[in-house]
Amino acid sequence: MSWMDAVIWNEHELVPAIAQDAASMRVLTLAWMNREALARTVATRQAHYWSRSRAKLWHKGELSGHVQRVLEIRLDCDNDAILLIVEQEGGISCHTGHGRCFFQRLENGAWHDVEPVLKDPKAIYGDG
Amino acid sequence: MSWMDAVIWNEHELVPAIAQDAASMRVLTLAWMNREALARTVATRQAHYWSRSRAKLWHKGELSGHVQRVLEIRLDCDNDAILLIVEQEGGISCHTGHGRCFFQRLENGAWHDVEPVLKDPKAIYGDG
Repeated sequence: MSWMDAVIWNEHELVPAIAQDAASMRVLTLAWMNREALARTVATRQAHYWSRSRAKLWHKGELSGHVQRVLEIRLDCDNDAILLIVEQEGGISCHTGHGRCFFQRLENGAWHDVEPVLKDPKAIYGDG
Repeated sequence: MSWMDAVIWNEHELVPAIAQDAASMRVLTLAWMNREALARTVATRQAHYWSRSRAKLWHKGELSGHVQRVLEIRLDCDNDAILLIVEQEGGISCHTGHGRCFFQRLENGAWHDVEPVLKDPKAIYGDG
């Protein structure tokens, strides 16, 4: 597929993918895709990534239910970064229970959590 | 500096940095920072990156005048991605003359340019 080959994959065969909330316009997450993740994202219109920590394909929300419905898929000028415009199920995109992953802000020489935990991760994923 | 050491740098001693426009909320660019780029960004409140293609520190806008004034610096939950909230001088963040780098959208199995070139790159950078 030529649109797939147009993407510049890095030395690990991955590309960074930003997810932005369509309604609030907030940047939710930065994750990574391989070819299979991008193909499944396009086919299902739900965000799929490559989990580097678990070294496996990751259907975002598969455990939490917090899927990302994909409205738009964008590529940058040099073809090595992807932007997804999504609807975030449950309003929570972060495994910490924050609404999004970018909840730390640099202030006075330190990173501060400046957004609330909306749901206890134990309630999202269970205790196990 | 502990806030600098809190960042997880990749095997190339880089971290991806998203720039988002404070006014329009559009995602403008994804670039990369090393420690010096982040330190200069914090010190000057203008975005600095590491240019991987030129292998040098890059003060965004140094040639074009299209600097990014940094209002907020955010870090994600696992400390390996940065989000800058910026004011984009000139309303152009992309070297192609588009307003931002994410101007290609996947439609019907192909990437389409869906945003206009606002200024001819030759007018931005000169004929070279």
